[in-house]
Amino acid sequence: MFTCDNLGVNAAGRLTFAGQDTADLAARYGTPLYLMDEDRVRHNCRVYLDAIRRSFGDGSHPLFAGKACCFTQMYRVLSELGMGIDVVSCGEIHTAARAGYDLANAYFHGNCKTDADIAYAMDHGVGYFVVDSAEELAAIDAEAARRGKKQSVLLRLTPGIDTHTYAAVNTGKVDSKFGAAIETGQAAELTAAALGLSHLDLAGFHCHVGSQVFAEDVFERAAVIMLEFIAAMRNQHGFTARQLDLGGGYGVRYTEDDPVLDIAEKIGSVAAVIHETCARLDIPEPAILMEPGRSIVADAGLTLYTVGAVKRIPGYKNYVAIDGGMGDNPRFALYRSRYTVLPAGNMDAPRPFVCSVVGRCCESGDIIQENVPMPEDIRRGELVAVCTTGAYNYSMASNYNRLPRPPIVMLHGGESYVAVRRESLDDLTALDS
Amino acid sequence: MFTCDNLGVNAAGRLTFAGQDTADLAARYGTPLYLMDEDRVRHNCRVYLDAIRRSFGDGSHPLFAGKACCFTQMYRVLSELGMGIDVVSCGEIHTAARAGYDLANAYFHGNCKTDADIAYAMDHGVGYFVVDSAEELAAIDAEAARRGKKQSVLLRLTPGIDTHTYAAVNTGKVDSKFGAAIETGQAAELTAAALGLSHLDLAGFHCHVGSQVFAEDVFERAAVIMLEFIAAMRNQHGFTARQLDLGGGYGVRYTEDDPVLDIAEKIGSVAAVIHETCARLDIPEPAILMEPGRSIVADAGLTLYTVGAVKRIPGYKNYVAIDGGMGDNPRFALYRSRYTVLPAGNMDAPRPFVCSVVGRCCESGDIIQENVPMPEDIRRGELVAVCTTGAYNYSMASNYNRLPRPPIVMLHGGESYVAVRRESLDDLTALDS
Repeated sequence: MFTCDNLGVNAAGRLTFAGQDTADLAARYGTPLYLMDEDRVRHNCRVYLDAIRRSFGDGSHPLFAGKACCFTQMYRVLSELGMGIDVVSCGEIHTAARAGYDLANAYFHGNCKTDADIAYAMDHGVGYFVVDSAEELAAIDAEAARRGKKQSVLLRLTPGIDTHTYAAVNTGKVDSKFGAAIETGQAAELTAAALGLSHLDLAGFHCHVGSQVFAEDVFERAAVIMLEFIAAMRNQHGFTARQLDLGGGYGVRYTEDDPVLDIAEKIGSVAAVIHETCARLDIPEPAILMEPGRSIVADAGLTLYTVGAVKRIPGYKNYVAIDGGMGDNPRFALYRSRYTVLPAGNMDAPRPFVCSVVGRCCESGDIIQENVPMPEDIRRGELVAVCTTGAYNYSMASNYNRLPRPPIVMLHGGESYVAVRRESLDDLTALDS
Repeated sequence: MFTCDNLGVNAAGRLTFAGQDTADLAARYGTPLYLMDEDRVRHNCRVYLDAIRRSFGDGSHPLFAGKACCFTQMYRVLSELGMGIDVVSCGEIHTAARAGYDLANAYFHGNCKTDADIAYAMDHGVGYFVVDSAEELAAIDAEAARRGKKQSVLLRLTPGIDTHTYAAVNTGKVDSKFGAAIETGQAAELTAAALGLSHLDLAGFHCHVGSQVFAEDVFERAAVIMLEFIAAMRNQHGFTARQLDLGGGYGVRYTEDDPVLDIAEKIGSVAAVIHETCARLDIPEPAILMEPGRSIVADAGLTLYTVGAVKRIPGYKNYVAIDGGMGDNPRFALYRSRYTVLPAGNMDAPRPFVCSVVGRCCESGDIIQENVPMPEDIRRGELVAVCTTGAYNYSMASNYNRLPRPPIVMLHGGESYVAVRRESLDDLTALDS
């Protein structure tokens, strides 16, 4: 009935999330409201931690991809669990540092790291740079030289796999703004360049074949291509990669149409291919890293809104307008992403009223979801929940229409607490002269 | 050669904006950097102010649509010029109030005003509410009753015009989340309801037939439909509308392919149709309002970036990565919007290198523009300008990838000053526990 088992309905006919009454939470904290089920975050981390440690050798572990959802309290939780992280900016490094997270366990990604970024990351002891281009390689080597240190790096390669996920989040094909392509020989050139620079320690290679992966063997195919490249580099340069970072994570359930994946089992299948391929190529098994972001936080998140207006346009369409929208969740506007939308305060009523759930921004494209079934008598003041919003909602939020961003309230062991407070009107003008 | 005459090239071969050297501005303020040509803002306001005052009767004036670009200093300029404004949220009202702007000249829009929004707007003396639905009508009347006042309102109607602009910004057709449709009889019902509420003063009607309008007679067709509705309401209810708000503004030039419009002439044509139609229908001419936002600020804006990496993927495509992206300009990601992108520091070189100019976010869809001609030797550290970014860039900006938002530097009379300071890393975590 639900996309995730942290959702339920109580005796009052209200939606529960992490066992708590969503109407009570809305009344206490106001709407729009991001909820984050901390217990589910911990559970999802443990699934990856346990499966990767069990399936691969020493040093193998997951990195949380902070771009999915980055705020200070998240890194406190990750630190406690022993999760590695990937970071993509000084802002993410700053946030992790503020939480006391040990950045030796951080991998710094990005296709356009500035000189200032590189210096900032080294100031904070970021363990690994995932290098995206020859220019960046030179810049990192120069900064490490200035500091008289050797910086550990991985090289980002594009294995040329099309995952058939949505184009915007499909990053492993040869035509990509990211990394160096194996097919064109540019990956080998970048490797030779890295090995020739004296202030770099090349730890291994990274690829990212896409986000929201459901396809059967994407990670397996990527692993084989990357291991064959590792073997080729050993033959050409006598260089043995210690780490292989496969990027990304498995798909999450936005709607009941999405399949349920057994992540431990999927990771076991990848491990079998890696064991077999390393044996065939006669190379030592590198430590394996993966970078789940969405699959750690998406189903730990839920957004609550209040209905402001209901429109029935005879012969056309019905609309339910809510007090948030593309400002706090731009994913329908950007990708036409699917979400499960529920009448949180009235879960037991039949839902014959098919409507577009739209946001409050002055823009027609501000839509949360089309074709949502709702109770016939839904009206102003009622509560609407959008499920599975933990990833790429808060992190992509804007102040479009000069709307303050919602707070993040964490749910843990039956309690709730504010991890990010609601933006105020004064916050909106804090940078204005 | 350029989309707007505030662009030029100086003797050093560098792009100038509002007569100032963009490389000097980048060196002084850093990149990414939003520039806003205050003199052009003033010019664009005056074009609408003069044309509307000249073409229509007493009380006719333009309203700046703050959603295009909202920050405190903007309202100081608007206040000085005598521009009206439309506001869509408490955040916009707060920003205008902070600038000392007289909110009696404000029109409060939006399809989902909460009770708290309505109270806040009345606290601040907002002159007019543009009412979107029956629920809102009741809520405004109730709040005005509590205060023992009469609130002026307009009703938002959908005249059923398809402007053939992009669907996301096309808001005047019958199937819309906005307003009440004339075609279905719902506009007449809403009018009757408004006239029956004792704490409302119905000033007139509003429609918005779309943003970025180039089509020949969109405003003319909308005006005729709205005036016929006004005449029908006079006949049915003896109610004479004092105001007709035609919404929106004319299209701006993002690229040289976009036509040059003579706005004064276009408004003159609308006026001729309105005079003729009012005479035909034998109704007094209402005061006419228009709501330019984009056409006030778009060509007054320009964004400067620094190149981080250049990629040539043989047989595929070329990429130039810059130190900003969909975080500060999400319009390509959202709408595939076209922009003119220039090598600001090297304007005299030939541009045979065709590339995708991409942002620094870890997402393949983070693209600023495709098929951009650039100099053959463009490289890390060079300056790139994206023109016509004054509208819907800053106002839609996010912290995606935990990137700080750029500052807004205003250019005025050969001088520059910071109107919105650069977001700091501490700003990013200011709301975090």
